[in-house]
Amino acid sequence: MEPLPKSIAKFVKSLQLKKYRVQEQSFLVEGAKNISELLNSDFEVNFIVGVPGFLESIEDKGIELYRSTEKELSGLGTFKTNNSGIAVAKTRDFPAPGERGLILALDRVSDPGNLGTIIRTADWFGISQIVASENTVEFFNPKVINATMGSFSRVFVHYCDLELYLKNFKGEIWAADLSGESLEDAELIEPCVVIMGSESHGISEALLKIKHKPLTVPAYGKAESLNVSIAAALVMNRFRTRK
Amino acid sequence: MEPLPKSIAKFVKSLQLKKYRVQEQSFLVEGAKNISELLNSDFEVNFIVGVPGFLESIEDKGIELYRSTEKELSGLGTFKTNNSGIAVAKTRDFPAPGERGLILALDRVSDPGNLGTIIRTADWFGISQIVASENTVEFFNPKVINATMGSFSRVFVHYCDLELYLKNFKGEIWAADLSGESLEDAELIEPCVVIMGSESHGISEALLKIKHKPLTVPAYGKAESLNVSIAAALVMNRFRTRK
Repeated sequence: MEPLPKSIAKFVKSLQLKKYRVQEQSFLVEGAKNISELLNSDFEVNFIVGVPGFLESIEDKGIELYRSTEKELSGLGTFKTNNSGIAVAKTRDFPAPGERGLILALDRVSDPGNLGTIIRTADWFGISQIVASENTVEFFNPKVINATMGSFSRVFVHYCDLELYLKNFKGEIWAADLSGESLEDAELIEPCVVIMGSESHGISEALLKIKHKPLTVPAYGKAESLNVSIAAALVMNRFRTRK
Repeated sequence: MEPLPKSIAKFVKSLQLKKYRVQEQSFLVEGAKNISELLNSDFEVNFIVGVPGFLESIEDKGIELYRSTEKELSGLGTFKTNNSGIAVAKTRDFPAPGERGLILALDRVSDPGNLGTIIRTADWFGISQIVASENTVEFFNPKVINATMGSFSRVFVHYCDLELYLKNFKGEIWAADLSGESLEDAELIEPCVVIMGSESHGISEALLKIKHKPLTVPAYGKAESLNVSIAAALVMNRFRTRK
């Protein structure tokens, strides 16, 4: 449990930015709950910075540990307050998921909180097949990791050319839209993929040209749209509760 | 369309803080979409600050208008960039909703994005009955208003002593929990109230002592919990799709 060198502090802080996450192939995992999930996962852990009390609880894992104060931690990471620690782990690419069950295809989802919540909800419903367009927010963004509440260690996102992916897909293709077959009536025969569009721009024209069936959550009120993480949850719930 | 006086700029900026929102009984509505919903609502509008192009589009409403630059707007409000305007409107208290349909009871929900998303989703499902504990995040918090995507103008939150409210409630009381009757099997006979707990602490002990039925979204995976706005959406969807 060494004191925290300035160079390490600077390195940790730099990983708040995508540029350095890509360059260093490393990402941040903040807080006790997320770090505990990280340590139970296959991700390679570089080192952990933390307060002495927290580091003692993970001392026997053979990982390099640097001690810091709570105040230092809040300067290094994205949490306003952090009374445990920050781990740095190696990023990796995730392979395309198998063509089975329900596959979520995220097109240009840009809000990290939404992506994190979709990953967390998928983990609840036992759905681990998520593909996303290259311009969807990055899996390793600290706000995504935090919003997953630990589920980043079990549910991954395969980034790809969605158009190509969908053209090669062998099962049913659905697209979540404002009009289409009611979610409650849709049969969702597996394997099936459901395309969920961007918060502000919906699904790309190019993807909508691919043969698909529109799918909708019937509206009873006056809101113009649903948050994408809410729509994704309703789709996953329907997939799990269909007869 | 007057130039923006410094005193008005200072007043707008102060409303980012709850202390001043309560003291001045005023709140911020940011961006074209939200302002347009505000102007179609019963809220009393004090004045609007905006860029000339935006103000021209709302000139005939008899509201005091102050012109500003985009740069000034991003300094006054909570948006990083704002190319339209910021309205200041009068807050008000919302009366208890009628005992009909589904009523959501939010206990200590603290994240403004979650409350805003719940309001937006309720508006989608045509559910306007929301009650909340006094320590639930404030309806007029700008992050709540923004996350509602305009639905703050149609769906309100009645803050009250939840324990007292539930004790006097005449219909069924359900509590969203990690174990209980499966949401898909629950009958949800109206009027019914469903209690949704805090993101980190769940439902208060005091409320759980009130006679209720536990209700759960069956888990198929390993996530420990669902985000409260996701759980609320699944409950509202179930209410609307029950036979």
